[in-house]
Amino acid sequence: MKVEQDLERKFNDQCAVFGVYGHPEAANLTYLGLYSLQHRGQESSGIVTSDGSSHFIEVGMGLVQDIFNQEKLSHLHGDLAIGHNRYSTTGESLLKNAQPLAVDYSLGSLAIAHNGNLVNAVELRNRLEADGSIFRSTMDTEVIIHLIARAESKNFVSRVVEALLQVRGAYSLLLLTEQEMVAVRDPHGFRPLAMGNLDGAHVFASETCAFDLIGAKYVRDVEPGEMVVASPQGIKSYFPFQKKNRAQCVFEFIYFARPDSTVFGQPVYSIRKRMGMELAKEHPVDADLVIAVPDSGVPAALGYAEESRIKFDMGMIRNHYVGRTFIEPSQQIRHFGVKIKLNPVRGLIEGKRVVVVDDSIVRGTTCRKIIEMIRLAGAKEVHMRISSPPTTSPCYYGIDTPTKGELIASSKSVEEIRKYLGCETLAYLSRDRMLDIFGKNRDDFCTACFTGNYPVLMPGMDMLQPNLFETVT
Amino acid sequence: MKVEQDLERKFNDQCAVFGVYGHPEAANLTYLGLYSLQHRGQESSGIVTSDGSSHFIEVGMGLVQDIFNQEKLSHLHGDLAIGHNRYSTTGESLLKNAQPLAVDYSLGSLAIAHNGNLVNAVELRNRLEADGSIFRSTMDTEVIIHLIARAESKNFVSRVVEALLQVRGAYSLLLLTEQEMVAVRDPHGFRPLAMGNLDGAHVFASETCAFDLIGAKYVRDVEPGEMVVASPQGIKSYFPFQKKNRAQCVFEFIYFARPDSTVFGQPVYSIRKRMGMELAKEHPVDADLVIAVPDSGVPAALGYAEESRIKFDMGMIRNHYVGRTFIEPSQQIRHFGVKIKLNPVRGLIEGKRVVVVDDSIVRGTTCRKIIEMIRLAGAKEVHMRISSPPTTSPCYYGIDTPTKGELIASSKSVEEIRKYLGCETLAYLSRDRMLDIFGKNRDDFCTACFTGNYPVLMPGMDMLQPNLFETVT
Amino acid sequence: MKVEQDLERKFNDQCAVFGVYGHPEAANLTYLGLYSLQHRGQESSGIVTSDGSSHFIEVGMGLVQDIFNQEKLSHLHGDLAIGHNRYSTTGESLLKNAQPLAVDYSLGSLAIAHNGNLVNAVELRNRLEADGSIFRSTMDTEVIIHLIARAESKNFVSRVVEALLQVRGAYSLLLLTEQEMVAVRDPHGFRPLAMGNLDGAHVFASETCAFDLIGAKYVRDVEPGEMVVASPQGIKSYFPFQKKNRAQCVFEFIYFARPDSTVFGQPVYSIRKRMGMELAKEHPVDADLVIAVPDSGVPAALGYAEESRIKFDMGMIRNHYVGRTFIEPSQQIRHFGVKIKLNPVRGLIEGKRVVVVDDSIVRGTTCRKIIEMIRLAGAKEVHMRISSPPTTSPCYYGIDTPTKGELIASSKSVEEIRKYLGCETLAYLSRDRMLDIFGKNRDDFCTACFTGNYPVLMPGMDMLQPNLFETVT
Amino acid sequence: MKVEQDLERKFNDQCAVFGVYGHPEAANLTYLGLYSLQHRGQESSGIVTSDGSSHFIEVGMGLVQDIFNQEKLSHLHGDLAIGHNRYSTTGESLLKNAQPLAVDYSLGSLAIAHNGNLVNAVELRNRLEADGSIFRSTMDTEVIIHLIARAESKNFVSRVVEALLQVRGAYSLLLLTEQEMVAVRDPHGFRPLAMGNLDGAHVFASETCAFDLIGAKYVRDVEPGEMVVASPQGIKSYFPFQKKNRAQCVFEFIYFARPDSTVFGQPVYSIRKRMGMELAKEHPVDADLVIAVPDSGVPAALGYAEESRIKFDMGMIRNHYVGRTFIEPSQQIRHFGVKIKLNPVRGLIEGKRVVVVDDSIVRGTTCRKIIEMIRLAGAKEVHMRISSPPTTSPCYYGIDTPTKGELIASSKSVEEIRKYLGCETLAYLSRDRMLDIFGKNRDDFCTACFTGNYPVLMPGMDMLQPNLFETVT
Repeated sequence: MKVEQDLERKFNDQCAVFGVYGHPEAANLTYLGLYSLQHRGQESSGIVTSDGSSHFIEVGMGLVQDIFNQEKLSHLHGDLAIGHNRYSTTGESLLKNAQPLAVDYSLGSLAIAHNGNLVNAVELRNRLEADGSIFRSTMDTEVIIHLIARAESKNFVSRVVEALLQVRGAYSLLLLTEQEMVAVRDPHGFRPLAMGNLDGAHVFASETCAFDLIGAKYVRDVEPGEMVVASPQGIKSYFPFQKKNRAQCVFEFIYFARPDSTVFGQPVYSIRKRMGMELAKEHPVDADLVIAVPDSGVPAALGYAEESRIKFDMGMIRNHYVGRTFIEPSQQIRHFGVKIKLNPVRGLIEGKRVVVVDDSIVRGTTCRKIIEMIRLAGAKEVHMRISSPPTTSPCYYGIDTPTKGELIASSKSVEEIRKYLGCETLAYLSRDRMLDIFGKNRDDFCTACFTGNYPVLMPGMDMLQPNLFETVT
Repeated sequence: MKVEQDLERKFNDQCAVFGVYGHPEAANLTYLGLYSLQHRGQESSGIVTSDGSSHFIEVGMGLVQDIFNQEKLSHLHGDLAIGHNRYSTTGESLLKNAQPLAVDYSLGSLAIAHNGNLVNAVELRNRLEADGSIFRSTMDTEVIIHLIARAESKNFVSRVVEALLQVRGAYSLLLLTEQEMVAVRDPHGFRPLAMGNLDGAHVFASETCAFDLIGAKYVRDVEPGEMVVASPQGIKSYFPFQKKNRAQCVFEFIYFARPDSTVFGQPVYSIRKRMGMELAKEHPVDADLVIAVPDSGVPAALGYAEESRIKFDMGMIRNHYVGRTFIEPSQQIRHFGVKIKLNPVRGLIEGKRVVVVDDSIVRGTTCRKIIEMIRLAGAKEVHMRISSPPTTSPCYYGIDTPTKGELIASSKSVEEIRKYLGCETLAYLSRDRMLDIFGKNRDDFCTACFTGNYPVLMPGMDMLQPNLFETVT
Repeated sequence: MKVEQDLERKFNDQCAVFGVYGHPEAANLTYLGLYSLQHRGQESSGIVTSDGSSHFIEVGMGLVQDIFNQEKLSHLHGDLAIGHNRYSTTGESLLKNAQPLAVDYSLGSLAIAHNGNLVNAVELRNRLEADGSIFRSTMDTEVIIHLIARAESKNFVSRVVEALLQVRGAYSLLLLTEQEMVAVRDPHGFRPLAMGNLDGAHVFASETCAFDLIGAKYVRDVEPGEMVVASPQGIKSYFPFQKKNRAQCVFEFIYFARPDSTVFGQPVYSIRKRMGMELAKEHPVDADLVIAVPDSGVPAALGYAEESRIKFDMGMIRNHYVGRTFIEPSQQIRHFGVKIKLNPVRGLIEGKRVVVVDDSIVRGTTCRKIIEMIRLAGAKEVHMRISSPPTTSPCYYGIDTPTKGELIASSKSVEEIRKYLGCETLAYLSRDRMLDIFGKNRDDFCTACFTGNYPVLMPGMDMLQPNLFETVT
Repeated sequence: MKVEQDLERKFNDQCAVFGVYGHPEAANLTYLGLYSLQHRGQESSGIVTSDGSSHFIEVGMGLVQDIFNQEKLSHLHGDLAIGHNRYSTTGESLLKNAQPLAVDYSLGSLAIAHNGNLVNAVELRNRLEADGSIFRSTMDTEVIIHLIARAESKNFVSRVVEALLQVRGAYSLLLLTEQEMVAVRDPHGFRPLAMGNLDGAHVFASETCAFDLIGAKYVRDVEPGEMVVASPQGIKSYFPFQKKNRAQCVFEFIYFARPDSTVFGQPVYSIRKRMGMELAKEHPVDADLVIAVPDSGVPAALGYAEESRIKFDMGMIRNHYVGRTFIEPSQQIRHFGVKIKLNPVRGLIEGKRVVVVDDSIVRGTTCRKIIEMIRLAGAKEVHMRISSPPTTSPCYYGIDTPTKGELIASSKSVEEIRKYLGCETLAYLSRDRMLDIFGKNRDDFCTACFTGNYPVLMPGMDMLQPNLFETVT
């Protein structure tokens, strides 16, 4: 009788990281940064600060605004802080897996916040355990900590390099010692990580919308393969890894990032709208009205409408009071799960040929219900338009996608999907058209979820068990 | 260091009522109904059910989804239920004021849920106290209960009439006894109240979006001055009051109601969009972009854009994780309160002449900050357009508006407001143009908040103290 | 799998009242007073204060220390305060029934805290409802409030008299207006009510242990039938009621009151110990060891040991961390409920002839388990001694006793009870011997629970339904 | 305005361990066991179970009954369980320090529950960190886990031996793998650990009162230096360590253990009472009344009374509703902290020469207040008798005592203490007399807290910093 699905977000998302180096309000600013990055992870959140000699830690389950209060923030002393929002990729939602992870080791205190996923975590963990390491979480992030603790260099920064040379996969990391902060992105640059400046302090964030809230200035991205070290000696940049092809996650533009963010140096809203325009060019249709599946589908829908010169209206209204769990009446209400969140505006839709724009289709079940709701609201025709290519393959770089078998496009043709969804027409934006939007940077992106061509292979890719132990995103 | 303002909603809203007569899942459906009406009151919520012989009650402070759980709903036995969401009009937010109010009296059990405000509550309360009544809340609603308990008729329905003949003001009420439900609207029909049908059961709601969620069919409105009685003898309609001019709240269309609702028989989204179109006709401007203050300004902005043929974009993004309270950093962040909720999309705005559409201006402080944010995001010109007339006078019929002195338009001309806001141009939709939208029904609305012409006078209107005791909306 | 019985206390107890007139720390002192009276009611607690013009209210479910915190106490302004701990007499444990009850009526604000039970509450309530009163609780206390509100006198004190002349039964009341406090005991004086003095302020409490904690001096009891009025005009005493025979609850000495309190002018510990001594004289036995059922049986056991010159030891240890609810293992553990709370000390008991002293036997089920536990711990003989007469009849004056049918002594002889309990001998202190302890005051007590001779008859005593509506104690 | 001291217990106590091997209700029984051992640690509690292949974990801050509920227990699958109650020795009361500690390592899953304190933990930790280990808690217990993980043996049991050969100090440990449970006591046997049997299942507990509650039979103690291994191959006993002199904590008898427990093979109540009898022989006094400081002083007081033939009475009553924190009124109430918990019975004490028996004196501040309270209640003379020797030296084996400087007897003579306390006479039981009680086992005890002769030296004992990092008891 309880719907415990996440009605908020289409994907079980990624994670967010945020850091401040050298600001008297480091903890408060990190709190705000995490707040603005809430969409990237709603399961747990945490902040670790340093006052130059000790770490202070607060982590908890739930939303940023529920975990932190005035009293807890006041305990987080110091000018240095890193924070993390987390969405786990398994059903286990446990406090022991909340980040930042904070430990003591031979060089002192160390905390880490990680967005991404290591593909060789299982084999590294096995090796570490064989050497006598103990693990208290099920996160791949804990592997990195152990590698640093066991590294041979005397110097912290060298140890980080030594450790990261052993891992493969996606990572945008913030590391905090008593006096240093390290921000590093894997050589492919799968996940974003931006640098900013606030009153002379260095700030780091998964997305720039966090900078906007605190009034920080976006400076540039941490580059793929770059390690930025902030310390009492100033800020330094290193490129300690072998250069690789960029493989930035294109789905950040399609769905994950907030539209007011700049990601990988590009404004998300504009890219998302361009996707809708390209979609209109590639798959035009004779219709009366363009509507969006809110909120993520709105920019692409506006693009589609602008390009096609078909009128746009907010034909579906979203209830913004929807939480994660909901009590369902025992007597089944038709399309209950979707209805809790979305309601079509009959007066707009009735008798119309409607283009419905969404950013992607995962399993197809929700989309099917939406289409039927729109039809019940009186639509004469429903033309589904998706502003990305068919999602055929799971992600191993930090996004919690369903298994391949659950992805409707992995086994069905577009026509088969159309039939399942029950719409007059269905069309996806092609990968080529999508990449065209990025011009000369068109090859800088990972599109493995559309193609199955993975930039970094996992050990035993064919007998893949991505949840052997839990990965943190 | 704490911002305890309501960042969610512009007005401290109204209340919502919802009722089900004759359905085995009465409590669950009422829970869902209240859920979809959450926007009308976020302070407290409650449900009273009847199994034909006893009442069952659950009320609490906070949001519907936080108050009710499976266990509490399972205690709410019976086929009859009424529910209420509340927003108090004073700072006092107390459980004793949560509705529905449930009492025992000579005829048995009685529960009441009220949307509106009685203008003669103070004098009635004084009279009742002089006659020996005691009051446990500070709500005007409790007056109605006492009047019913003290009425002379033997018959419940006659008692309700007897009671309501003594009150003046705004009320859309649901009353529940062990076996009867009464739905009644005051003769002016200030507040909405819709009737629907679900599998043969009668349902009542402040807005029709509640019917959509539970799959009920909207039948018609309870008419101004009508009393609908559902009992084991069937459903009956009475018009026991003297006929009055209709004075339906036009602000339901401007701001309060959800855009997917039908209110006073009219689809909210369409009316709201028409307001934007009329605004564009009345106050055109040469500009590059139309944006909205989300979410309430979006339909009017789309209307403005459509009529003016200026491009519309989602130039401001709203953070939907914003709760009621927020911890502010001690170092003042510029426009913090607004920034928590809204962020402009620089890429869209930069270098543009921007039309910003909002539904109304209350104190002007928030609007001023929004305009400065847009300007800081690079707008070349900012043209503010308001899809309603200047709000000059407080509401005494169930909306919690600031005092007259706090309403910027009560003492400043449009040009003075423009200067205060700091925009290139400012224009409001005129009252005449607004009413034109309703055609032959143009005289059916209360526009007192724009004109100061109050359809029902309060005792001693000139020395008005609306909060003598708290009114429930 | 859950034991939801009250493992703390043998009877679902009474209530406690506490009041302070004229002290700058009225709320804090009331909090402390209620804390020390926690044993008289653990279901809900509340405080109402007055600053001379307004009331401030905090009530909640649970223990005093869980309901109140620094913040809540800081909202309770003023020099006047009354407080209440409650134990309901029905399964319904609802916030609406928490006391003090606070209302507004024609003379202003009024709050009431009540220990006792009105026997004619149902008929009064019916009459009040017929006259148009509404009831929001199921407590008899609400009747008193209505009677005061409807009284004809202009003067508050006269109204109280007018109201109380209509009620029959047990009441020790504290009433609070904006500037006055009234403490009153019914003419029979069923329940205790003591007066004290702290730095010139008047204090009132159900038991004197509350005075000890706050450092107040016990002055005297409010007398049966006395009404003490504290106001800005000073303190006055009235005896407005017809004089009646005293009927003070003897069970206060047997079980309810804390042993360090003085009740009805007598020290509880000494009386309780004397009961044990009389018991030893009346029912001696040849044995090796006297033990008590802790904690309530300890003073009587010490008295029994002292008189009989048999050694006393703490042969049963009580776990003081026991809360109200407990999770029982699915595999039945023998005597689980009792074991959670009590454990015999085998080393003391093994091979001994043991006298076990308890204050009373209610249903007999717990006593039976205790005896078996003691036997399993190796006792050679178990001689049960009860320091009060057999409890045969329910109480209608504020104690929540089981129904007559559930009281084992209502239908079984002492010998039959002994057989049921499984002990070698069983003996109760006789009523005569018990009253002898009080000397010339021996006729001042209600012993209805032992005799069925009720000092105040209920309407229709023979077809008694004490829970027609809930009574507050 | 807040008293945040522990009003419950004199010492910040020890910890408790409990384990079940091979019972279908392992988690429920462990819950009950921890419940009965609550007096040994009220800060945090936890249970880890195994179903033969996986571990299940629940830990939390607070009391056993508040942490666990039906739902949480139902997640703790399996026939094997260990549990822990904890009292930290520093102000830091953090979830990360809650036990059992559960990790994954090369051999699989491992959980540990520890009562005691390692004296060489700091040096071991330094060495482990130098070898690349990371620490997530500040507990010495984590050192043991690392030593096991890094041990060279392939076999789990051998690894435990290998690890424990490196640690020095006090430990009674329970270790849990997927299929094995190890119970082990250090060679000196500082802390207790008992073995029992329930329906064929092996159970382990810090005290036997836990066996009584679940109906298990006490079999014997785990011997000092013994390691008991329960596995699918049955139960085996090993003595892998070099034999040492016994140094069992005598304070278990004086204060820590529940009086209904058997500890180190001796019944606590009887020993405690014998201490009172010896005290009476050694330090008689002419007096009228013996009273105890409840609850811990009661058995010794009864012994003193029995031996001296002076009457015993419960002259001080303890409020059993006292929690850990308390809101103090701003106006200082005399002896507030003590009064909240204890109240003398004036009627017993007035005009009497009173012997007050307590088990020990720590700082002397509380004792001084108690003596003044007794005097204010009218005592003619106060003779303080302590049933143990003067406490002069801190404990390094798992008891959280104040520093040497805070112990009043470390720097003051008995006569000086008497003057400070303000009593007529003061006398302590001598160490010799105390040990006499144990007869031939008189040399089996650690009495370092009375003598400063520590059985196991800490590294750098003279420049002792026992809280270098936190020790778990």
